Amino acid sequence: MKFELKGSDKGSKARAGVLHTDHGIIETPIFMPVGTAGSVKAVHQRELRDDIAAQIILGNTYHLYLRPGLDIIQQAGGIHKFNGWEFPILTDSGGYQVYSLSGVRKIKEEGVTFQSHIDGSKHFFSPETAIDIQRTIGADIIMAFDECTPYPCDYTYAKNSMDMTHRWLERCCNRFDNTSSHYGYEQTLFPIVQGSTYNDLRKQSAETIASFERDGNAIGGLSVGEPAEMMYEMTDKVCAILPTDKPRYLMGVGTPENILECIALGIDMFDCVMPTRNARNGMIFTTEGIMNMRNEKWKDDFNPIDTSLGGHVSTQYSRAYLRHLIVSKEILGAQIASIHNLTFYLWLVTEARNQILQGNFVDWKNDMVKKVTTRL
Amino acid sequence: MKFELKGSDKGSKARAGVLHTDHGIIETPIFMPVGTAGSVKAVHQRELRDDIAAQIILGNTYHLYLRPGLDIIQQAGGIHKFNGWEFPILTDSGGYQVYSLSGVRKIKEEGVTFQSHIDGSKHFFSPETAIDIQRTIGADIIMAFDECTPYPCDYTYAKNSMDMTHRWLERCCNRFDNTSSHYGYEQTLFPIVQGSTYNDLRKQSAETIASFERDGNAIGGLSVGEPAEMMYEMTDKVCAILPTDKPRYLMGVGTPENILECIALGIDMFDCVMPTRNARNGMIFTTEGIMNMRNEKWKDDFNPIDTSLGGHVSTQYSRAYLRHLIVSKEILGAQIASIHNLTFYLWLVTEARNQILQGNFVDWKNDMVKKVTTRL
Repeated sequence: MKFELKGSDKGSKARAGVLHTDHGIIETPIFMPVGTAGSVKAVHQRELRDDIAAQIILGNTYHLYLRPGLDIIQQAGGIHKFNGWEFPILTDSGGYQVYSLSGVRKIKEEGVTFQSHIDGSKHFFSPETAIDIQRTIGADIIMAFDECTPYPCDYTYAKNSMDMTHRWLERCCNRFDNTSSHYGYEQTLFPIVQGSTYNDLRKQSAETIASFERDGNAIGGLSVGEPAEMMYEMTDKVCAILPTDKPRYLMGVGTPENILECIALGIDMFDCVMPTRNARNGMIFTTEGIMNMRNEKWKDDFNPIDTSLGGHVSTQYSRAYLRHLIVSKEILGAQIASIHNLTFYLWLVTEARNQILQGNFVDWKNDMVKKVTTRL
Repeated sequence: MKFELKGSDKGSKARAGVLHTDHGIIETPIFMPVGTAGSVKAVHQRELRDDIAAQIILGNTYHLYLRPGLDIIQQAGGIHKFNGWEFPILTDSGGYQVYSLSGVRKIKEEGVTFQSHIDGSKHFFSPETAIDIQRTIGADIIMAFDECTPYPCDYTYAKNSMDMTHRWLERCCNRFDNTSSHYGYEQTLFPIVQGSTYNDLRKQSAETIASFERDGNAIGGLSVGEPAEMMYEMTDKVCAILPTDKPRYLMGVGTPENILECIALGIDMFDCVMPTRNARNGMIFTTEGIMNMRNEKWKDDFNPIDTSLGGHVSTQYSRAYLRHLIVSKEILGAQIASIHNLTFYLWLVTEARNQILQGNFVDWKNDMVKKVTTRL
């Protein structure tokens, strides 16, 4: 999997690149809509492609493994054939959901035993099974199996967990390098930096992860409740160590402000449920700020949601209509808000890329941060 | 509002026509998707137009009156401007929902007092307010305020209720004829035949309703739990009396079979929540029969949902994927199933129209009834 750097910002560590996959290219910095169970909630695949201009989406190994299950995905010919999304897909390793969603779980050196949140059935994930499962799902980019520590996390736990994540990475790489894609196209494995909020652990982890020399590198264990400044500090430290000629993926981040600040620190790839989850609760991100559609003030605002984006839903439907749908719990409200927010997120990273290439990123970013944090 | 008969079937009472409104033409027989609160659930307006080929949608006065409320719709410039659907809209009078959804309600000669199912607030609908409200909502076709009797219903109640519905119609017509459209385009009022399942009452009601000589006529109080044969018998009796040169609308009907049989009896317009409500529960109507997507048998069926329809969702997504989404309660499952079912319903009435015009309706209908009632 080839990554080309197309330009770097002079005033920050922001970069613009192109990642080549067998399902098409990804222009970075990029935001990846989250398609948990093989569907970006409330959004058609056609809308992802034509309206939102998504270039890559994410799937959750934990969810896909439990439902529809590997036999179905294998029979379909992989996740792209199963859900009809013909462009790149990234899967996480399942670890994060095992920790956050499942009931009883036991983390041991060998792997993690957990109960399905759906039917309570028992399952076991290890570095090896996580690779096997992701080979079967068939994502273009697959993630190493790690432990994502919570915040706050005491130093000893964070260090021991990080060490285990590093040992697990060795096992992931062995399994990955001794198996091959099931469906004829290339897959690649990204390792994940851990180390909680400790400078020395993050440094050690970044150095270890970099030493594996994979096609790209990820940063995990952030955006789990720590202050934003701490997240930026850790991201900055880790980016300084991770190689510049490979894409850097900051997992689970974040708000529009977080994304802009972390692009400035050298991050190339992002994913987050925020644009879709918050959409379903009526929170709309626009080029001028954040709108809570449950607020009375929108009830008679017949302007389009956000004309500057130019997308179908953002210009066709009015704020008053969207508010009505959200308040009335109409499914169409979730659909409009989700498409709008994702269109905004993709616009944001595309515009960031343009500004990096034009050499005006920092000024634009500082101006945009003010706007995107404004409550309208 | 002009209605042109384009052709009549020789083997049945089926007709093909064109209804002209200021928001465009409606080719009959037609099915009208139900957009209760100003949105056809889980379907974008663009999809209604481009994928489903809907020509007219229905809105519920009761819901729209309570939420977003008349002031908002009036300020928006009417329902078309509010929800962005530029084609014809029909509103019911609110009566049916008052009886079925609201809590405490009191029916008197003057009108009906009821409590909102949303917040328990008290409201009053009368023939006059029902017209005023529908004038404000701004539908192209507005319905008279009636009492929809339940099934079974004793003769005395059915007769008294029908008589009141007729007196209410007089008041509706007076109010309608002494007011005008708020938004510059034509509105028309359809009266409603009642009379429960009693032949003499239905005859009397149809004669009374016909005598008002409105632009179109509706049949209410059917498809409320009575056997299908009884519904067909009443529909047949009423159609024989209602004028042939005006459209006939059978309210709240029905299954694909019901629609085909009632087209054969001379009905021109239908509406029903079935294609969208059942879609959300995983029931799919196809040209070959009914599929319950919760059934295990679809879990590894990677064929398109129904290629014969040619629509975007029906050919792009597989049965296995749709089943996965429905079982996983993913919103996209409701979206795909709703678009598919509505596409099928619109295909069914369009094809019925073609067959009527080609003189082959009865053979085709008998063949289709077998297919659409098959459990796949």
